Amino acid sequence: MSAYHPLTESEAIDYARSLPDLFQPDSELTSREIGDGNLNLVFHISEPSTGKSIILKQALPYAKVVGESWPLTLDRARIESEALMIQESLCPDLVPHVYAYEPDLALTVMQDLSDHIIMRRGLIERNKYPLFAGHIGTFLARTLFYTSDLGMNQQEKKERVKRFINPELCKITEDLIFDDPYTDSPNNNVPPAIRDAVAAVWQDTGLHLEVAILREKFLTHAQALLHGDLHTGSIFIKPDSTKVIDPEFAYYGPMGFDIGAVFANLLLNFAAQEGWGEDEASRQDFRSYLTGTIRDVWETFEREFRELWDRHGTDRIAKTPGYQDWYMREVLRDTFGFTGSKMVRRVHGLAQVADINQIQDEAAKERAQRLALAIGTSLIKLNRQASSIGEMIEIAEKAVK
Amino acid sequence: MSAYHPLTESEAIDYARSLPDLFQPDSELTSREIGDGNLNLVFHISEPSTGKSIILKQALPYAKVVGESWPLTLDRARIESEALMIQESLCPDLVPHVYAYEPDLALTVMQDLSDHIIMRRGLIERNKYPLFAGHIGTFLARTLFYTSDLGMNQQEKKERVKRFINPELCKITEDLIFDDPYTDSPNNNVPPAIRDAVAAVWQDTGLHLEVAILREKFLTHAQALLHGDLHTGSIFIKPDSTKVIDPEFAYYGPMGFDIGAVFANLLLNFAAQEGWGEDEASRQDFRSYLTGTIRDVWETFEREFRELWDRHGTDRIAKTPGYQDWYMREVLRDTFGFTGSKMVRRVHGLAQVADINQIQDEAAKERAQRLALAIGTSLIKLNRQASSIGEMIEIAEKAVK
Repeated sequence: MSAYHPLTESEAIDYARSLPDLFQPDSELTSREIGDGNLNLVFHISEPSTGKSIILKQALPYAKVVGESWPLTLDRARIESEALMIQESLCPDLVPHVYAYEPDLALTVMQDLSDHIIMRRGLIERNKYPLFAGHIGTFLARTLFYTSDLGMNQQEKKERVKRFINPELCKITEDLIFDDPYTDSPNNNVPPAIRDAVAAVWQDTGLHLEVAILREKFLTHAQALLHGDLHTGSIFIKPDSTKVIDPEFAYYGPMGFDIGAVFANLLLNFAAQEGWGEDEASRQDFRSYLTGTIRDVWETFEREFRELWDRHGTDRIAKTPGYQDWYMREVLRDTFGFTGSKMVRRVHGLAQVADINQIQDEAAKERAQRLALAIGTSLIKLNRQASSIGEMIEIAEKAVK
Repeated sequence: MSAYHPLTESEAIDYARSLPDLFQPDSELTSREIGDGNLNLVFHISEPSTGKSIILKQALPYAKVVGESWPLTLDRARIESEALMIQESLCPDLVPHVYAYEPDLALTVMQDLSDHIIMRRGLIERNKYPLFAGHIGTFLARTLFYTSDLGMNQQEKKERVKRFINPELCKITEDLIFDDPYTDSPNNNVPPAIRDAVAAVWQDTGLHLEVAILREKFLTHAQALLHGDLHTGSIFIKPDSTKVIDPEFAYYGPMGFDIGAVFANLLLNFAAQEGWGEDEASRQDFRSYLTGTIRDVWETFEREFRELWDRHGTDRIAKTPGYQDWYMREVLRDTFGFTGSKMVRRVHGLAQVADINQIQDEAAKERAQRLALAIGTSLIKLNRQASSIGEMIEIAEKAVK
């Protein structure tokens, strides 16, 4: 079974049975393939006699998006499993446990999270998750601090940068986030109703300059080991638990890119409230929950990051007066820019979000799309001048007034 | 001969003889070991019957500086030879030709440049090199542009970043340039006469903040493949030829670090003129030559870099209005900061420069040291506000008034 091939369900069961200390010897195991088949096979293996279950995730050597298929490196399974293990060492409760990784098969064996739901789905159902802000703020503070030059030996960090060079997955981001949305690219998926607003984005050279600068940071600023794709579809959640999954886009990049991914997806849901509220009061209430969450995430992140820095900063220079304030301000500014970029691409780019696209009322969907574009472009334009998280919330609130 | 061991002269000759197409079969070869034995063995192999000669440079597994010895990776020989070959492909006339590289022996076979002299020596002798500014400006423009995301495929660039992860050599820079000079470190070599000025550097928290930010860029900003140690001791020169050597510190970092290395060493010589002039007029004349060279290097670099960008920019986004101007301004600002950092470390850090240290007159040496510190710290403090190369020259000129 060692040469790479996509596993059958019975091979998946055999493989699961071979793992030490997981299942009873000779007990019956069942498998259900629950992946969408676009990027990975995902086998849910369970042992009915004990109720135990695990996930086998196997990378496929191609990606399928909107009917297109292109080859995609299997090395992403290594990157994903190594990133998960680093994240688990830093935030044991906030990622699925990895039981094993099988390089030849591009196969990761991990904790079953079937009792959680995908957060995007939860937000569309207007669930509130009061613990989420604390959880994800801690995840961001710890994973970003301890993988940066501030929190780890700087020579070991360089070796880690090397292990997480991830050209193929980064290329997807570079194209779909920083390139296509700002030009009339065939990769876009422009909703006809907002073609005028999209055309304005294509014409806005001031906006393009900011996006070019943000892309430069994405390409060159090896600041911390990022998750790389931290949207609400990469978060499993239930009221008392948050689990960040799928770090196959992990690479060394600017911290604000991960923080911005979280905020962008909260703000996309904020915009999508146009289509989900039965009444204005409930819409406002959920929007307040979302902006409050953004504030809490940032404040948790900033407080914990600064605490880690003060207590566990790697060296003397990290304690230079003024350096921490300068650093946090730069991370905030990047966060504004990447939040905006990650919103814009979800309105008329290749891959969009269910929060908006599942709105049934076409007029409401159009309002949501225009709102998301307006908020996203405003954040991008402000980014290099941003000075507090309050400004992000203000931009969002003003846009719905 | 394949397992690593330091070569004897007769082994060096045998090895040279085994190279194809260099020497006559069976002709007599002679060897002279001309390295300083601190980092590398350097064999000058010549064939008296034809006058042909080559250099065999073999890395030693340790570094010796000021009597101390510590282990140092042999991988630097690979990095040096690969960097030389990339540079040669971009600027064939501006680096020594590499005939062969023998990984097991950490051995590079390269063009003999004995008809050139080390530029630092040339400047101490007050030679002027009118072609130098054009040569080094071109070297900087071409090597930095074509190894950056602007001038090469961005996915191939990531693979190249990986090949040039260079932790041990970067560590030397991180310690000796960005750390020790700003604190009372045992690695410093403080000239007693200027202890007051050095103590002021150790107290200056505004300066420390700028240095911490510059170090952050050195640690994280994977902008282009740098030479990494581009001082005037790494340049072989004669009136009609400039050859950049010894890129063992090569890694992906901020462009301004290489440009700043050139300027810092020109300005160290500028400061050292205190000790070399017989008369004020000749001192002023050579200083004008040096500042004029700085201006010409920057202008050549900027003009050629912009031309390459306009003609050979990798993608659509590189053409975004305003992006090139923003980028060049950032490179200029980094250049100010790194120029200053590379001056300060040469005044009271571990490794100093002959331009200043060989001054016989103690009072003149002290004036030169104070001047270099004053110019260096001013450049560091200005760096994030710099707007033209003229400001660098102004700072230097004001310091001697």
